[in-house]
Amino acid sequence: MPKSRFEGSLSTPCVDVAIDLGNPLLNLTVDGFLKIGAVAATRSAAEDVYHIVRKGSLSEHNFEQTLKKTCKEGAYWGTVAGVYVGMEYGMERVRGTRDWKNALIGGVLTGALVSAAGNNNADKVVIDAITGGAIATAAEFIGYLT
Amino acid sequence: MPKSRFEGSLSTPCVDVAIDLGNPLLNLTVDGFLKIGAVAATRSAAEDVYHIVRKGSLSEHNFEQTLKKTCKEGAYWGTVAGVYVGMEYGMERVRGTRDWKNALIGGVLTGALVSAAGNNNADKVVIDAITGGAIATAAEFIGYLT
Repeated sequence: MPKSRFEGSLSTPCVDVAIDLGNPLLNLTVDGFLKIGAVAATRSAAEDVYHIVRKGSLSEHNFEQTLKKTCKEGAYWGTVAGVYVGMEYGMERVRGTRDWKNALIGGVLTGALVSAAGNNNADKVVIDAITGGAIATAAEFIGYLT
Repeated sequence: MPKSRFEGSLSTPCVDVAIDLGNPLLNLTVDGFLKIGAVAATRSAAEDVYHIVRKGSLSEHNFEQTLKKTCKEGAYWGTVAGVYVGMEYGMERVRGTRDWKNALIGGVLTGALVSAAGNNNADKVVIDAITGGAIATAAEFIGYLT
């Protein structure tokens, strides 16, 4: 059962979101969407808050744009993460093992799929697939180290 | 003792690189440098190989440029990974716990440090710090899921 936990600081209450869709693949995908979507939305919001603080001006326009951008970024990266987690789970089922090659193949497929869905040409899709594989493999290696 | 293992395919022999510098922080940093540097160099080389195959032309110029770019990319991302792994290890020692906040703080510090080392202005350093924190946190969450 996927659990998403967000803690702002040590004193704030935890918000636990637990969703069970009865299928491990769906659960993983939704969990990936929620977690990485939240991280991407937070990043986007933090960046905009810094820009607002830096400029010292606070207008309604800023808030509306920030909210829109935050939701878009969260949904985009959440979808990418959901696709990737689903791909890696599928690789694990197909190959029957858990190693870094699952991450590599999952990353390549995710990069190609996301890039193709974004109406890129064939060259860009291949480059994005290579980049996706590299990022996923790097994240997997960093995970072993830390 | 850090071990870096690179396998090209199932039939090729494994290359194991094991370096012990007698200090866990140094070991982790060197291991991160080697592993992520290798991934980044492979990505860069794969991208260039695709471009060469795509164009169908093979000249000496291509090879020299590819080799230079591959080494540069490998060294750059290896350094970033080494700094990050060191930061996260430091956070673990300072905070005394292992959780995703180590990744967040380590990512923020690494982003800021790498950006500052690259002679960026203050604005860019802050944005890179936010991005570094987001990427590290996302990688940590993906690691829990898969």
